[in-house]
Amino acid sequence: MSGGAQVSLYPMTDAFVPLILNSVKALDPYRQYFSKIETDDLSTVLIGPTEHLLPAIRDLFVAAASSGVHVVTHVTLSRGCPGMPGYTQCEPSSAPGQNQSTTSEETIKAAQKAVDDAPLLGQHASAQFAYYPLGNDLTSTGAGEGGEGEGGKTNKHMDEIYACIGFIKSSGVFEKEKNFVTKLSGDAGKVFATLHEVFLRFGKEGAHVALDLTVSANSPSLKK
Amino acid sequence: MSGGAQVSLYPMTDAFVPLILNSVKALDPYRQYFSKIETDDLSTVLIGPTEHLLPAIRDLFVAAASSGVHVVTHVTLSRGCPGMPGYTQCEPSSAPGQNQSTTSEETIKAAQKAVDDAPLLGQHASAQFAYYPLGNDLTSTGAGEGGEGEGGKTNKHMDEIYACIGFIKSSGVFEKEKNFVTKLSGDAGKVFATLHEVFLRFGKEGAHVALDLTVSANSPSLKK
Repeated sequence: MSGGAQVSLYPMTDAFVPLILNSVKALDPYRQYFSKIETDDLSTVLIGPTEHLLPAIRDLFVAAASSGVHVVTHVTLSRGCPGMPGYTQCEPSSAPGQNQSTTSEETIKAAQKAVDDAPLLGQHASAQFAYYPLGNDLTSTGAGEGGEGEGGKTNKHMDEIYACIGFIKSSGVFEKEKNFVTKLSGDAGKVFATLHEVFLRFGKEGAHVALDLTVSANSPSLKK
Repeated sequence: MSGGAQVSLYPMTDAFVPLILNSVKALDPYRQYFSKIETDDLSTVLIGPTEHLLPAIRDLFVAAASSGVHVVTHVTLSRGCPGMPGYTQCEPSSAPGQNQSTTSEETIKAAQKAVDDAPLLGQHASAQFAYYPLGNDLTSTGAGEGGEGEGGKTNKHMDEIYACIGFIKSSGVFEKEKNFVTKLSGDAGKVFATLHEVFLRFGKEGAHVALDLTVSANSPSLKK
């Protein structure tokens, strides 16, 4: 399945330019997978197979965080985007092994196994995200948007969303629900593995799903 | 109408803590309007009447940007959120003068007038946003998610979305469509006025709408 991400990296230091340029080297092993990598003053877009997006962003983030500087990455992730006229790069496509819509219990088990298998990276990360299931069948509230509320009751195909919420809460990195977003914290390896599963494992094959994701390391707020 | 925002401010300087603490004073005149202001290591949530959200965030951003430091604010905005059980703070409610669903032409004219009337602030801003219309009636792609594509053709109630796209393109601060997001640039007063109209003027009264918004100032990428 194809998709993409608009990625920004914010190092809270005077030396943010060299820190960004050094960290971006972590994307080198992934460049072969992406059909488009383009940077402007706001973000870098990565377009390509969805399974490479969050691993690439994880490595970028961990490279920057290893400096010890307070760094934040923000990512707008999308898969199954219907795209613009004549624009085929984010059209839904099939890929084996991911996003198979099975029963919720099997889906959760497979997602949890993927997180359990993810190696620890020795870097703490705090993350928050809003999950937006778009399109006619998967609409209204998701995990990051109060998925347990009234909205869910009036919509179809919410089983996968509820399964996703169940998975997040038992993933080992769930911290709390906040307004509009869900907060995770823990080792960056487990946090990104959980986000990867949320992005790819739940929702129908080819469904249009978007994530508004923020990940932070080395915040002085956590050292108080 | 009630809604809220998760707001983060990223100053790219070693002295990011005092810069944030100083900038947050710009929120003081707005504190009376919000029923909840709560900060953790990732963001500050503002819950309250939607018409105060983007003006408050604009003043916070301009205060930080006036330092000359490269600063970025990221905001997850939501209105009409169905909320979680027992949680009433982001339930839809009526407010006069905003979000009247009229004909598209009238809506665009009113939105454009609001932008024309917005004062210049003498601070350049680059912004990008993804617009997510959620719920059963306003689904799939919006302005930031390829609103002119196939998704739109299969969904109802897209007239307001197309009107919104028309407004953005003629707002005076439209820069370009990017993958998944729309980019604006210009004086911060006009950029935030445009975002305010996008957030509140379009979509049905009480519709669940979310924005994933990034605004940047003083980027060295623009000085090259």
